[in-house]
This record gives sequence, structure tokens and C-alpha cells, in this order.
Amino acid sequence: MSFPPVEEQMELLLRGTTHVQVEQELCERLKESREQNRPLRVKAGFDPTAPDLHVGHVVLLQKMRQFQDLGHQVIFLIGDFTGRIGDPTGRSETRRQLTEEEVAANAETYRQQVFKVLDPARTTVDFNSRWMNAMKPPEMVRLAACYSVARMLERDDFKKRFRDGQSISIHEFLYPLVQAYDSVALQADVELGGNDQLFNLLMGRTVQKEYGQRPQIVLTTPLLIGTGGRMADGVITGDKMSKSLGNYIGINEEPDQIFGKTMSISDELMWEYFVLLSRRSLAEIEEMKQSVARGANPRDFKAALAGELVSRFHGEAAGKAARERFDNLFRQKQAPSDMPVVRAAATPDGVLLARLLKDAGLTESAGEARRMFQQGAVRINGEKAANENLRLAPGEYVVQVGKRRWAKIVVEQDPPESRAAPGREPPDG
Amino acid sequence: MSFPPVEEQMELLLRGTTHVQVEQELCERLKESREQNRPLRVKAGFDPTAPDLHVGHVVLLQKMRQFQDLGHQVIFLIGDFTGRIGDPTGRSETRRQLTEEEVAANAETYRQQVFKVLDPARTTVDFNSRWMNAMKPPEMVRLAACYSVARMLERDDFKKRFRDGQSISIHEFLYPLVQAYDSVALQADVELGGNDQLFNLLMGRTVQKEYGQRPQIVLTTPLLIGTGGRMADGVITGDKMSKSLGNYIGINEEPDQIFGKTMSISDELMWEYFVLLSRRSLAEIEEMKQSVARGANPRDFKAALAGELVSRFHGEAAGKAARERFDNLFRQKQAPSDMPVVRAAATPDGVLLARLLKDAGLTESAGEARRMFQQGAVRINGEKAANENLRLAPGEYVVQVGKRRWAKIVVEQDPPESRAAPGREPPDG
Repeated sequence: MSFPPVEEQMELLLRGTTHVQVEQELCERLKESREQNRPLRVKAGFDPTAPDLHVGHVVLLQKMRQFQDLGHQVIFLIGDFTGRIGDPTGRSETRRQLTEEEVAANAETYRQQVFKVLDPARTTVDFNSRWMNAMKPPEMVRLAACYSVARMLERDDFKKRFRDGQSISIHEFLYPLVQAYDSVALQADVELGGNDQLFNLLMGRTVQKEYGQRPQIVLTTPLLIGTGGRMADGVITGDKMSKSLGNYIGINEEPDQIFGKTMSISDELMWEYFVLLSRRSLAEIEEMKQSVARGANPRDFKAALAGELVSRFHGEAAGKAARERFDNLFRQKQAPSDMPVVRAAATPDGVLLARLLKDAGLTESAGEARRMFQQGAVRINGEKAANENLRLAPGEYVVQVGKRRWAKIVVEQDPPESRAAPGREPPDG
Repeated sequence: MSFPPVEEQMELLLRGTTHVQVEQELCERLKESREQNRPLRVKAGFDPTAPDLHVGHVVLLQKMRQFQDLGHQVIFLIGDFTGRIGDPTGRSETRRQLTEEEVAANAETYRQQVFKVLDPARTTVDFNSRWMNAMKPPEMVRLAACYSVARMLERDDFKKRFRDGQSISIHEFLYPLVQAYDSVALQADVELGGNDQLFNLLMGRTVQKEYGQRPQIVLTTPLLIGTGGRMADGVITGDKMSKSLGNYIGINEEPDQIFGKTMSISDELMWEYFVLLSRRSLAEIEEMKQSVARGANPRDFKAALAGELVSRFHGEAAGKAARERFDNLFRQKQAPSDMPVVRAAATPDGVLLARLLKDAGLTESAGEARRMFQQGAVRINGEKAANENLRLAPGEYVVQVGKRRWAKIVVEQDPPESRAAPGREPPDG
């Protein structure tokens, strides 16, 4: 295959990144890849604990996908070496030791989810236990010699814990080193990760140099703000997306949930989601923005984004259907609160809707009613009525004809005559 | 075998120690050993780099020997795991990687030296590469989880380097952990070491506990003050014995050097050497001290210590001979500077000493001269003259008869008449 021009690649790859170390090196590596017709080896590491991904994770997966779309090879690395060890201090219950079977099961769960974003043909799933379990103790010592205690303590979380007198176990220093060594074992050209992983990713560069390799280029993606993010003082602020905070959109959620949650985000956050999650080009996104500036309703673009997300996680058809259901529901919500109420007695075959429309004054004639049906302008509870022969069972219905005519239809179960019987309801009730 | 009573063992084992953790535990472990008729496993670790031992090292070896004399088993552990790795940072030239052959050769050099103090029958020589090279990475991580970064940084040298902004490589944290794990692998009951090793030895206790073992008892011995140590303000002060400072007594040095260097130490330091190096009981040492307090010459006890050291490192006979040579040399040094000079002309058979003594006025008569010879009271150049028939070849001799009579005897090669020849020496010269 042939790779797109370097400039074109750079534009896509830099999109939405928070940190690139070093941009010039990325440029050169892409150039070299193109000249040698060699796909870059792009590494991203994942925790081996049971994954349940949300679109916050998709930011990174999407960046991986962009590399794939340009022809590069992605290594989806499951860090099972540490997971298989668990937390030897026994302090953290969440880091209990995983069995080989659990790791395999989790890997399968990952596969089911990530290939909704990644291209399987350009993805290698690997496990760092493959080289770590074979490592001899002297090599382990050599690895530990690559980094100093003081530099390790510069990592934000370590720094804070050390300053606050909270215990840091020495094996915790080994994990970032192992993760850095993974880049050596994989001969990674590029490593991707969330911005909170920047320290670890940069350590990969140091360790690669110590092992005589060219340092990988590091790209980090931002932590996605959860669905509650709002603009404040010109900046979008909010908690990062997380399951525990409930401000997430899970990629395994039902289409309607994904669609609805996406529709709930603020207009400003929507643009950020577009840049980080959508496969639309930056040019398209810019066009939409300008269109909103000229008066277009941002809701329509949000629905487009929501539809794209559902399509991605559940397929095109599901995306389209979810959008239609949402539109219907949305219209239903727009129904006026002071609609006229039309009551009808139930009949064994159901009550013909077309007749009720005329009774309720929603259509002038049976002929108009028929035309409205044919135009798809009649909706029952937000959904298009199938045809003019529709009959209603007992219950309450919100009926809309055209854009502005509304009525509530109540088809009553009890025969109307019994309602007037003394003792059951006052005569004037 | 049966072990001596615990109290008796305790007295010997605590002799000259600087730190015992925990005395009560030692007492209980000795009791248990006695009840179960099980020798304690007593570990001491040694550096694998080429050893050239001096009596500073003997302080520790002597403590090991005391355990052996009480019936316990000593493990002389050579820490070749780290030595085989060398310093992976390449920063220290002194810590280059040792080959397997070098480690074996150094072990042999150790054996040749340490068995001058240790009892080979109760010594196991072991190498920590035996278990460390077989350790799997997850076990390494587990080991690293036994200790915290903050506690490790409490070690004096680490603390100082960290505070001063000098780099500490993470692998340097692994070495003390490995050394501590050695106690787990060896199931050590006791670990011995120099006082500067206290931190590491105590870490062995922590790590053993983490591995479900009873913590070893830790005994440290003081760092021996070098031969230049002097009493100042009621305390013996001086640099610790070291090769580079030149204030050492090497156990492979010649008998006369060992003897002479021992004789050069101050009287106060002598008592410390006695406690830490001698096999004499504390009671004996106390007796000697009291004897000095009553007016005895400390020089005689120092000579006894010197003789003991030479005997230990070169055998009984060498100890005795060295003492005699020293005594002679010492007496020679005591010769007055204004001795009468007796000249005699050489004869083909040598000049009869007995005759010269009378000529020099050192004996009243030939009969007294003979008696003095028989009593061994005649010395030539500090050594006892064999018998009254001794004849002297040309040369200069310092002759002593009894305690106070001295003379310098010059047996002249040239015939006396030629000395007066004009032009060779002034007539009045």
C-alpha cells in the first residue's frame, strides 16, 4: 500500500491531541515510513481488569483508528503482567490477582468492544506477560537501573503521596518501568495514551534509549469531559467522564440510551465531542459551527453526532432507527398541555382512528383525514400511524395531525351506559 | 551434640556487639535450639569482589566463630547475584560485572582467609545467585512490594544522596531487598553484620515476616578503629580500619608485620582489640586490665595479643617465633648509644666471642663469661648466642650480657697493621 502525504497524515494525527513529543520526530518517522513503505508500530496499553468502555475511552481508540486509516499497525497491548500479579501489598482489593482465564475473558470482552472502533485487520492484540514472564532477574535489575528514584517521584501521584506521607511500595516503581519496557519489546514507533499517562509514556522514550532504540513518539489525547460539562467563563468545565460519576455514555448501552445521553450534552461540549469522537473531518465540523452561527439549530447537529455514535456501536440501521425514535419522542414532548380530550367507547374490533379525528375536529372531513394519513402526517404517541384503517384499543393516546393539531383520545374500556349507574359515579360527575 | 546453657551462650554472643534486635528473641531462639537440639542458622553476607581481609573483618568473623564454638551453623554467603550483574548504570567503574570464574576465584580467596578464623566443619559457603537467578519476575515484584520508598529513603546513604539531589537509581533499591530475601531463602535464625549494615539486616526481618517466616535476630559488630586510634576526651577515636587509609593489619601480612603493627597501637585501643578480636575470655581480659592498673607493663599484654593474632593467621609456631623476634628487636633498640667499642682483627676461624667479652670488660672472667652463655644471658644483635664457642666473622655486632652490660664489637677485615699505612688514614684518625 502507499501512505498518504506526510502533511495530510500529520493533520489527522495531531487532531485533538494534548501533547506530542516530539512533533518533528513524528514528521520524520512518517516520512521514513512512507519512503520505506513500512507501517509505523503504534502501541497503546490497556488495563487487564474487566473492561466496560465508554466514549471517554473512544477518544484514544479513535486516535488509534486514525493511525490505522492512514495504513499503520496498531498494537492493542493488554498489561496482564501486572494484572496477573495483582497487588502484592494486598492493600487494594480492586487489584486482586487475575487468573489466566480471567485475563483471556477480559481480552475477549475488550475485543468485542474495541473493534467497534478499531480496524481488526490493522490491530495486533498482545499481552506483556509474553516477555515479562520470561525476563531474568538480572535483566529486571538492568531495567530498574534505567530510571532514578527522584525522577520517578516527579510523577504527580507519587509526588503527592510522598509529600503527604502516604506509603509508596517499591514495586509500584516497577510497574511504570515494565510499561516502558513494553515499548522496547514491541519496538514501538509511537505510543498513544490518555493525557494522565504522559509521564509513563515519556519514560518509554528514556528506556528505549537505554536499550539502544530510537525513542518512540508520544501522543496523548485529552480526558473527555462527562455529559454534564458546561461552559463557564469561556471554558468547558466538568468532571471527566467516568462510570462512577454516572456522566458517561457506555459503548455497550442500548441505542436509545446512547442517543439520548448524547442529546443531553451542552452545545459547547458537543463541538469537543465532534473533534474527539466523530469521524467527520475538521472541515465538516467547522462548516456545522458556522451554520449554527448563522442561526441553525445546534440540536440537529447533536442528533447527527448521536446518530453517528449509535451507528458506530450498533450499526448503521440502529443509528437511523434511534434517530427516528428520538425525533418522535421529541415531538411528543412538544405536545401542548391544553389539548382537547376526545372520549370514545371501546368496541370489540377497536375504534377507527380516522373517524375519531373528524369527531375531535382534527380534520375537516374523512377525505382530509385520508390524505393526512397518506402523507404520513398523523402520529400516535409520536410515531407515524401506519394507515387510515388503524383501530385503537382501550387506552390514552396523544394524536397529532400535521404540525399543530393535537388531541388526547381516550378509548374507554367500560361501556358508557354503566358509567351513569347510581352509586358508581355521581350523576353530574 | 548438646549446646551450652543459654545464659553462657548469651554472654559470649553479646560480647562486643553494638546492636541486638531483639535480645529477648535471641534468648528464646537459643532456648528452642537447645531443646530441639537444632543448631541455629547464622547468616553473614559478603561482597563478591576480590577480598583482601584485615582484622577489621575479623571482628565479624570472630562473632561467627563464637556461634560455631557454641555449636551453631554459619552460612558464609557470597552476594554474587549483584556482583554478577555489575552496576548496570555503568557509572561506577569499581562495580564492573564479574564473570563466573572471577566469582569462583574470589570465593576461593575468601576460603583461604576466613578459615583462619572460622571452623570449616560448621561453615556453609553459599551464593545468592543460586536462588536469585531462578526468581521469576512476578516474585521479584512481590519482593519489591515488601518495602516502601519512604522507608528505603531512611537509609543514611540514600537519605543523604536524595537530600543532596544526587541520583539514586531504582535498581539500587533492589539490592537491599535481594539481600533481605537471602534471609528468607536461607531461613536464617540470625544475621550478623557490621554496624553500617544495620538497616539492611533489619530489612531482612521485615521481608521474612512478609514471607511468613519468623524474623531473624540481628546482631551487629562495631567497625574496628584502625591502628592509629587514640584516647581523646575519654573516648577512643580514629578512622575505621581500612586498606586505603593504611591503618590496617592484614590477615595475609607477614608475621612480623602483624606483630609489629599490633604492638604499635595505643594501650587503650589494645583493650578494644582484645574484646573484639581475641579468643580470650572477658574474665581473662579483665584480669589483665587489673594487672596493668597494679603497675604491670601493658607492652607485655600487647605482645600477647600480637602473638595471638599471628598464631591465628600463621599458626602457633609462627606466633611464638614472631614474638621472640620482636622481643629481640625490642631489646636491640634499648641498647645504649654510648656503648664502648671493642675492635678485634679477623682471624681465619673467626674471633672467639667469649674472649672478646672479657677484653671488653663485659665479664669479670672467662668463667663468668661461660656461665653467662650457659644462662642464655649473652645476646648478639638481639639474639641469644648459641654457646660459648661462638666465633665472629668480620662485621659489627651489638653484644649484650645480662640486662645492662653492652658493647659494640668490630671485627676488622683488614689486618690492623695496614690501617696505619700513610695515605689511607691519618695517623691520629
